[in-house]
Formats: sequence, C-alpha cells, structure tokens
Amino acid sequence: MTNPTAAMLVIGDEILSGRTRDANMYHLAGRLTEHGIDLKEVRVVSDDPAAISGAVRTLAGGYDHVFTSGGIGPTHDDITADNVAAAFDVPIDVRDDARAILAERAKRTGQELNEARLRMARIPDGAALIENPVSGAPGFTLCNVHVMAGVPAIFEAMVDSVLPTLTGGTPLTSESLMIFRGEGQIAGPLGAIADDFPDLSIGSYPFQKDGAFGAQIVFRGTDPTQVAAALGRLRKALDL
Amino acid sequence: MTNPTAAMLVIGDEILSGRTRDANMYHLAGRLTEHGIDLKEVRVVSDDPAAISGAVRTLAGGYDHVFTSGGIGPTHDDITADNVAAAFDVPIDVRDDARAILAERAKRTGQELNEARLRMARIPDGAALIENPVSGAPGFTLCNVHVMAGVPAIFEAMVDSVLPTLTGGTPLTSESLMIFRGEGQIAGPLGAIADDFPDLSIGSYPFQKDGAFGAQIVFRGTDPTQVAAALGRLRKALDL
Repeated sequence: MTNPTAAMLVIGDEILSGRTRDANMYHLAGRLTEHGIDLKEVRVVSDDPAAISGAVRTLAGGYDHVFTSGGIGPTHDDITADNVAAAFDVPIDVRDDARAILAERAKRTGQELNEARLRMARIPDGAALIENPVSGAPGFTLCNVHVMAGVPAIFEAMVDSVLPTLTGGTPLTSESLMIFRGEGQIAGPLGAIADDFPDLSIGSYPFQKDGAFGAQIVFRGTDPTQVAAALGRLRKALDL
Repeated sequence: MTNPTAAMLVIGDEILSGRTRDANMYHLAGRLTEHGIDLKEVRVVSDDPAAISGAVRTLAGGYDHVFTSGGIGPTHDDITADNVAAAFDVPIDVRDDARAILAERAKRTGQELNEARLRMARIPDGAALIENPVSGAPGFTLCNVHVMAGVPAIFEAMVDSVLPTLTGGTPLTSESLMIFRGEGQIAGPLGAIADDFPDLSIGSYPFQKDGAFGAQIVFRGTDPTQVAAALGRLRKALDL
C-alpha cells in the first residue's frame, strides 16, 4: 500500500520579496512525514488571484491533499478563500457557522465585529471549518484542499486540528550516518547500495564544517529492517 | 519599465521530508529584490526526473530567469544537471572546461578525481559555467536557467557569481509600520489606501506577541515618494 500524497501551497508576497522567512513548510513537512502522508511538492505564489486559483486547481488534481498557508485574514491582500472557491467554481459568502464563531469571540474580547473582520467568515459552499483555537477565525477544507492561516502559531494549531481527521499511511523510518569524507569518496559504494535497495530513499547531504567536507547519509523507508540492513552495508563498505 | 521576473526551483527529498529546513529561498528572495528582479514563484520538488524536468520546462517558459538549488553533487541522487538538459532536449556529458576545474582542485587537495567526482563535470551543451569559489565544482547557466548547489555556503557564492551578470531593474523601496491593533481594525482604511495607490504592493502581516495581536504594514514600490505618501495616509487615518 502506498501512502497518500500531498502538496503545499504557500501564499504571500512577503515570502517572495525576502521580507519574511517561511516557517510553515518545514513544520508541515515534518508533521506529514510522521503521519505517513508523502509531501511531494511545494509551491510559493504571490497574492495574485490567477496564481492562487491556478496553483490550487493543478495541485488539487495531482495529489490526494493540498495544504495552503496564508492570505485568510481581514485585509485587502487576503484573497485566498475567494480564489480557492474560484478554483472549484463554487460560490463563497459570509457563512452563519463561521460568523457565529467570530461573534462569540468579538463578544468575549470586546472587539467590534466590523465589515473587515466579517471577511474572515467568508467560507465556500460545501466546505468544512478547521478549528482555530488561537485567534478564532477558522480555516476550511474544500474538497481535498485544506486552507490555513499564515501566522505560524495559528498555522500549527490548524494543522493539529485537521491532521487527525486524515487517513495516514506508514510513517517513514530513517537512520543516518555522518561521514567526514568528501561525497566523491562515498558516491561509488552508496550508488551500489541504492541499486540493491530500490524500496529505500537514500540521500546524501553534503556539509562543510570548520573547513572540512563531509556528508550526512540518510536511509528512509517504511521497513525498519531494510533501513538497518542498508546502513550496515554502508558501514562495512567504508570500514566504519 | 517593468522589472525582469524570476522563479526558483528547490530540488531535494530532504526538504519535503522535513529533515532539512531550506535556507536558500529566503537568501535568494532578498538578493533578487535588491537587484530589481521580481521573484514570482518558488517550487520545491523531489529527486524525481520527471518532476525536475517538468518544472524546469514550465518555469523557464513562464519567467525571465529560473534559479535552481540542489542536486548537483557526485552521488546517485544528484540528477539535476541531467534533467535540466532533458528539459531543453540538449546533450550532456563530462565537459573539458569543468573537468579541468575539478582536476586542478583534486591536485591541490590531494583528492582522487574518481568516477563519482567526474559526474560533477557533466555540463549540458551550450551552458556557461557558474564559478564556485567554495568547493570548485561549478554550476551552470543553460538558456535562462541558472543551476546551483544546495549547500547554503556554495549556493550563496554561486548567487554572487551569477547575479552581477544579469540585468536588474529598479530595486523596490519599502517602508513599514508596526501597529498594535488587530488587523480587523486596520483593514478598512488600509483597503482604501490600497485602492488609491495601485502601483504599490501593500501588505498586512499579522503577528501575535505576548498575547496581543498586531500587524506589520508594509508598503513596497519603485517610487519612494509614493511609498512615503501612502505611509503618511495610514498614520493619519489611524491617528498615529
């Protein structure tokens, strides 16, 4: 059985201009791996209607799940919800269940539920809400697209809300070996091992530390026995 | 005159599995903004031939420049060069100029120039080499695609090598204002200002700090006068 596949779509000019360093990709990648969902692709696009709806359409058609981050707040540049709705050609408007959540929170915090805040209750027809325990305004799941906030604390809370509802696969096991030799010396034996273990993903990640070169070799797979066997083969081949 | 556009393609299973946190996207985004090249899209794909060549073909056709990161080392999982060549349907083999660079370095460091290391001299026909002052093995530019290493120190050195050769545009000016009010209170006046300054990109980036909500408002544009005027309008509207 193969694991479900996923893509992530990060939305926001601030990432592309270099103003903000994205943190959500790294977080989601780790959480999906633990849950047995294989993240296959990430795209980052700007706050542009055609870029968002086009990417949503392509990714939703290509993977079992799509997770989006960013663009669901109350300001003029928050256009994700409308363009996810457009991608699936479904209507979107302020929805009573989302409005009730915002109204309850506004009452509790003494904020006014003005027109701008009400924008955050715009939910496409047929979508299920994703709980936001941090700041109230919900995300939503439409078809196979999970729409979440960009603020890391809220994004992470929404991932916690949505992930338990998704069927996972077999979590990957990984083992790694740090080798203080240049990759050029490791590549030969490593290639032979990769050929002999076609079910494993074997990566070599070079590093440079205090002027010396080395590589972290990582063996990943769903069968721990194979992972251990491949690691043993490499140790033996390199006399480690 | 509009600025040249760019996309970035990050290649590597280690990013998608959550093992490694990518650093090159943030670095490149900042450098391109300074240089007046507008980064419009980023994609992260796995070490998969079809995923790499497909993304290269799409992005090279859609933007003035494409910058890739990762997958050009000596090991079995380093398949970027071959698949960039495949995307443009040009032959690739060990090239004399690249081999000479590796041979000179091997001689200097006492390493053997073995078959694995020679893989790093595989350069597509017609490509120009990108200098790598850190570890020798060069990157390359094929048509509008600039192929660079994934190790951050080497990636950054290659960006330094290639960027001065590219025609830039007008660097963006930006000014920002940190406001300790919820976005819902700022959204109304901010939307009106965005309507009045269509040449500016105006972003609102919410944050949460010590339990209080606020937003960083950023005005970006190529005309500093407009940027300052828009900022002044917001200060006035919010009595700041």
